[in-house]
Amino acid sequence: MAGNTIGKLFTVTTYGESHGLALGAIVDGCPPGIELSEADLQLDLDRRRPGSSRYTTARREADEVKIQSGVFEGKTTGTPIGLVIENTDQRSKDYSAISQVFRPGHADYTYHHKYGVRDYRGGGRSSARETAMRVAAGAIAKKYLAQAYGIEVRAYLSQLGPIKAQQVDLTEVENNPFFFPDVTKLDELDQYMRDLKKRGDSIGAKVTVVATGVPVGLGEPVFDRLDADLAHSLMSINAVKAVAIGDGFDVVEQQGSEHRDEMTPDGFASNHAGGVLGGISSGQPVIAHLALKPTSSIMVPGNSIDVDGKATEMVTKGRHDPCVGIRAVPIAEAMMAITLMDHALRQRGQNGAVTVSTPTLSMNDQ
Amino acid sequence: MAGNTIGKLFTVTTYGESHGLALGAIVDGCPPGIELSEADLQLDLDRRRPGSSRYTTARREADEVKIQSGVFEGKTTGTPIGLVIENTDQRSKDYSAISQVFRPGHADYTYHHKYGVRDYRGGGRSSARETAMRVAAGAIAKKYLAQAYGIEVRAYLSQLGPIKAQQVDLTEVENNPFFFPDVTKLDELDQYMRDLKKRGDSIGAKVTVVATGVPVGLGEPVFDRLDADLAHSLMSINAVKAVAIGDGFDVVEQQGSEHRDEMTPDGFASNHAGGVLGGISSGQPVIAHLALKPTSSIMVPGNSIDVDGKATEMVTKGRHDPCVGIRAVPIAEAMMAITLMDHALRQRGQNGAVTVSTPTLSMNDQ
Amino acid sequence: MAGNTIGKLFTVTTYGESHGLALGAIVDGCPPGIELSEADLQLDLDRRRPGSSRYTTARREADEVKIQSGVFEGKTTGTPIGLVIENTDQRSKDYSAISQVFRPGHADYTYHHKYGVRDYRGGGRSSARETAMRVAAGAIAKKYLAQAYGIEVRAYLSQLGPIKAQQVDLTEVENNPFFFPDVTKLDELDQYMRDLKKRGDSIGAKVTVVATGVPVGLGEPVFDRLDADLAHSLMSINAVKAVAIGDGFDVVEQQGSEHRDEMTPDGFASNHAGGVLGGISSGQPVIAHLALKPTSSIMVPGNSIDVDGKATEMVTKGRHDPCVGIRAVPIAEAMMAITLMDHALRQRGQNGAVTVSTPTLSMNDQ
Amino acid sequence: MAGNTIGKLFTVTTYGESHGLALGAIVDGCPPGIELSEADLQLDLDRRRPGSSRYTTARREADEVKIQSGVFEGKTTGTPIGLVIENTDQRSKDYSAISQVFRPGHADYTYHHKYGVRDYRGGGRSSARETAMRVAAGAIAKKYLAQAYGIEVRAYLSQLGPIKAQQVDLTEVENNPFFFPDVTKLDELDQYMRDLKKRGDSIGAKVTVVATGVPVGLGEPVFDRLDADLAHSLMSINAVKAVAIGDGFDVVEQQGSEHRDEMTPDGFASNHAGGVLGGISSGQPVIAHLALKPTSSIMVPGNSIDVDGKATEMVTKGRHDPCVGIRAVPIAEAMMAITLMDHALRQRGQNGAVTVSTPTLSMNDQ
Repeated sequence: MAGNTIGKLFTVTTYGESHGLALGAIVDGCPPGIELSEADLQLDLDRRRPGSSRYTTARREADEVKIQSGVFEGKTTGTPIGLVIENTDQRSKDYSAISQVFRPGHADYTYHHKYGVRDYRGGGRSSARETAMRVAAGAIAKKYLAQAYGIEVRAYLSQLGPIKAQQVDLTEVENNPFFFPDVTKLDELDQYMRDLKKRGDSIGAKVTVVATGVPVGLGEPVFDRLDADLAHSLMSINAVKAVAIGDGFDVVEQQGSEHRDEMTPDGFASNHAGGVLGGISSGQPVIAHLALKPTSSIMVPGNSIDVDGKATEMVTKGRHDPCVGIRAVPIAEAMMAITLMDHALRQRGQNGAVTVSTPTLSMNDQ
Repeated sequence: MAGNTIGKLFTVTTYGESHGLALGAIVDGCPPGIELSEADLQLDLDRRRPGSSRYTTARREADEVKIQSGVFEGKTTGTPIGLVIENTDQRSKDYSAISQVFRPGHADYTYHHKYGVRDYRGGGRSSARETAMRVAAGAIAKKYLAQAYGIEVRAYLSQLGPIKAQQVDLTEVENNPFFFPDVTKLDELDQYMRDLKKRGDSIGAKVTVVATGVPVGLGEPVFDRLDADLAHSLMSINAVKAVAIGDGFDVVEQQGSEHRDEMTPDGFASNHAGGVLGGISSGQPVIAHLALKPTSSIMVPGNSIDVDGKATEMVTKGRHDPCVGIRAVPIAEAMMAITLMDHALRQRGQNGAVTVSTPTLSMNDQ
Repeated sequence: MAGNTIGKLFTVTTYGESHGLALGAIVDGCPPGIELSEADLQLDLDRRRPGSSRYTTARREADEVKIQSGVFEGKTTGTPIGLVIENTDQRSKDYSAISQVFRPGHADYTYHHKYGVRDYRGGGRSSARETAMRVAAGAIAKKYLAQAYGIEVRAYLSQLGPIKAQQVDLTEVENNPFFFPDVTKLDELDQYMRDLKKRGDSIGAKVTVVATGVPVGLGEPVFDRLDADLAHSLMSINAVKAVAIGDGFDVVEQQGSEHRDEMTPDGFASNHAGGVLGGISSGQPVIAHLALKPTSSIMVPGNSIDVDGKATEMVTKGRHDPCVGIRAVPIAEAMMAITLMDHALRQRGQNGAVTVSTPTLSMNDQ
Repeated sequence: MAGNTIGKLFTVTTYGESHGLALGAIVDGCPPGIELSEADLQLDLDRRRPGSSRYTTARREADEVKIQSGVFEGKTTGTPIGLVIENTDQRSKDYSAISQVFRPGHADYTYHHKYGVRDYRGGGRSSARETAMRVAAGAIAKKYLAQAYGIEVRAYLSQLGPIKAQQVDLTEVENNPFFFPDVTKLDELDQYMRDLKKRGDSIGAKVTVVATGVPVGLGEPVFDRLDADLAHSLMSINAVKAVAIGDGFDVVEQQGSEHRDEMTPDGFASNHAGGVLGGISSGQPVIAHLALKPTSSIMVPGNSIDVDGKATEMVTKGRHDPCVGIRAVPIAEAMMAITLMDHALRQRGQNGAVTVSTPTLSMNDQ
């Protein structure tokens, strides 16, 4: 029931099943006059694309996006932007075996019971393929935010299974197939993934997203807080099981004198809050962390049932990511950008512009 | 700008500042024919009330709620339910000192820059006092869910600073002022809070909320997923910095063969997912965990600035909770109930009733 | 089910039954820094109040509005504005006779079948009394529009039964109890209403609302057009059966060469369009007309049925307006103002301000 | 800014310019299990198509719709339905002459000032071509309403310029190119249109839409009333300047004893209300009338200005409907169906099903 739209002033509505004819989106609310081409979107789509490295699913699609409307002579017109990606690599026969059984840990079971029918091919609507349109829409938001505010949204893989990034060098993130910011761990990651693949198992991951250049004032208390809306948009990504802002669960053991970010005439002295106070951006970098579960599409046999409730054993064959968290990096950027853009437009609705009456602080501490 | 409403079919809109005339809410979308009285709401309001124990703020208000509309001869009529709580204990003079300075870690700074003006008395709209109306509205949702589906929503304090509940006995939660489910730790908690109070500092906490009896099928992929909407509603609670569903951040180090909840003809074999698969409830208990930061209203001096950007030192005087996480227990229940009720009504919109075509599984593993 | 909110960035949510404890509203999204007092709202409430003339219902209530929140030191703070009017004149016993029967032409029948239960006292939620909160909220919008844009919203009774205003003198509207702009017809109106009252019957009316000073650019095609949203908000007023923009139904017989409003360097040459082209305000006065049906609460006996479907005869006793259209004048102003303010804020969200790239036209032809 | 979505539980979002690559829509919230094929949609698209008679625009496009998602093995799955129509007949060069001038009575002027840029080719987004997607989405709603409730939505041209239908024979509507229900006037209509075409002028029209089989109980007072939402959706159609429910503006001169629809054990005695009482459907046919203005795209020269504000004379060349009201017939059906379906789902959300506690009345009087 009508749950495929996100945003209030900048809205993204998507459609598409893994093995349907096409994926599509309508991006509504983009202000006019922004330079926009398909190449702007393709860049992030290529980062997300399966098959971009040997660690992600072997499915290969060009994922070529077409802008159907809303752009005229190279600029947005303020009217809705229609986006389409044709599905070219469908191989439906791979999936016929799973039409009558539920894969443990998958949405098969819940879709079946919610809707009565389901497009079982490749997970249908519950497939990670759906996120391609988020990335395309997010690329529009990223472009707008950069142009209108100088906001930059960057994500990276901060942990893969037991391997944590000890140092964060953003300039390295795009240089390795893991989007990993710590080059000293790349060999270890490579070895870990080889072993995992050999065992046919999968692994969870943690992704960190940071937006810099965010002005003070975005977010509408008390329900449409910036952090609450970010929690919504980031948790809506497939496989995400937790969202943290700033210090996240670490705050449980912190004392107030440690957690509060003190202020000086030169700026905030720290950023435990992750750039949000009282649901409103503080002018510091907005920082979020996501936990992504290990995919359940694995080759290790598991107990399950079929649609009649009878016991069966499942082994997922075919092409699957051993770590969906890797490809989640551009998706997380996209969702944070979409939410920030929505709030930037809402704040403009209020004040005409994001302006402040007294000098504001900022500090790029992360 | 218009951010004080939550929900789509069951909507809750609130108003009210800490030291204004009154707090109020409009609860719209409650089906007709539900028995409802002020006593139903008062029960949870009393659980949340400041001053209910020596560990929470000393502010004492009756927090007596009045139902202004929507109930006739003891039953809901399907029309909006107006709720009001008069503010009786205002003591405005306590707060005049903070009108020109920002408390570090508070929303003072962001409200000031977003709106230009702010009601600085007691935090104004950013005060935790705002949550009283969430609790009142949540009590309506809890009553509906129990009556229509047999759903029960229960929360407890799972960690306070370094002290974790090792065992969870829900029957003990209401027997101690901490809503703590592990009676073996009560003395330790008591001692910890005394020390904390002596030092004038505050501490973070973790709250766990569990809904049992939830049918399979609630949640609308891909953006209005049940887990995404829960993340939104729970993160919108004051001081919450992280929300986890099921195993949350633990999934980062889990392998797929460990994480996936296997299914047998007798039910799910585990509940790592926290009752949500693909954004849709699975019929298992829905489990969420929240991290609440330590309040910044502490008596330990801290560096800050005033509205002109000049350095100052802040000490918060007056009545404040050393651990806001304790009182968050009924608030977390309320927000989960509000979101579940919204989704229950949405699912009914789709199927006419929450019905399933094949036998569903459930398992009360938490 | 959750249908008591209007607007997207400027939202008004209301509650209250005719004979409940109170009427209330939450006005969310009002920008900060607007001077606002209860007196601003009371002015329009007094214009709408029953008993303000001998032609309207004899029910007499002070309708004294209280601002509960959102205003601090005389100015809006950007947080939600809570409004309450206590019901003081309830006389419930008058209405007990109608609890088991349906008044023909009333909402009794549809409320009964939709909800199963209904507050039958004075029409409950379907009473025109509900509109008091619209007027209070509209007064806030009118103040904002005047201050921020110089927009003025004025309504008048353009026809009562067979009596049409031949000339429109806005300065006379507030000088007579009919809000009638044609002083030459006042005696005729007075005589007509006396006769009507004698017969115990009621009469329909036409109300015209005009907003001047509206900038070009308000309205969001294709569904949230300004005219479509005005149609929604004006049709939502009790007893309204038709809404027209500009020439309305007269366009059916117009030719294109007659209807189109030609443009010259000095402005539009006419305003058949009523100030809206393609769903967007043109800079001309925005003009709407409403048709209000004659109330069914009359003393002329009529055939009806009771809740068991048995035939009965109905005569409505008690205090009722013979022409509800008269009191609809301030209500129509309020609803147009609410919709215009919502769109003004939405347009600001888009462009930062309502600015135009080339000189715009305007013409105060109505 | 984000105004291209209609509906709350059944939502339709559209994109597309007259001369862009394609038109598209996302229909979200359609319940699963409904049989649906492209042929179901094509039927109404063909009724609306330009060039279907010699009286409408000579532009000829196949308007072949493709369902991209949401349907699997011939049935809806409950996931969003993506629709696309490729634009095949674009002839952009026809329109270059109007890029720097405003056509009087057109949206050129308001789009230009709202957005700063506009796709001037064929009216861009403001073109009636946009309504193709409404018709496609409406066909889905019509199918659902018929199947789930036995609701039928039918429209016809009730007046063209001075020529009114004196008798209404719905079986004749599809037999003539005017969708006219009075066969005795067909020759007169034909002659009128020939004369009009010769003069190069255009004419207004009135369309009537009737939904039969609507159960009692649809509509959510007080703002989301069924009649208010119908006013919104019908007024959002290009060229519509007025919407009336039931007797519409005739109620201005009616007395209460005449207007009220009396009830007997056998049903309502009349239907002046048009099937809506208090914003809720009464079980009678829902009747609406629309006024459509004469298009401003005519060959009669008119005064206008260019983008620099200089005077110019305009003559619209190219292919244009002399009466856009004719093609509005299937569009009006579509919009009423979309709104009824949205409310049907909302009501199901409330009561689980559209059920009533006592016998309901109905009467097919129109």
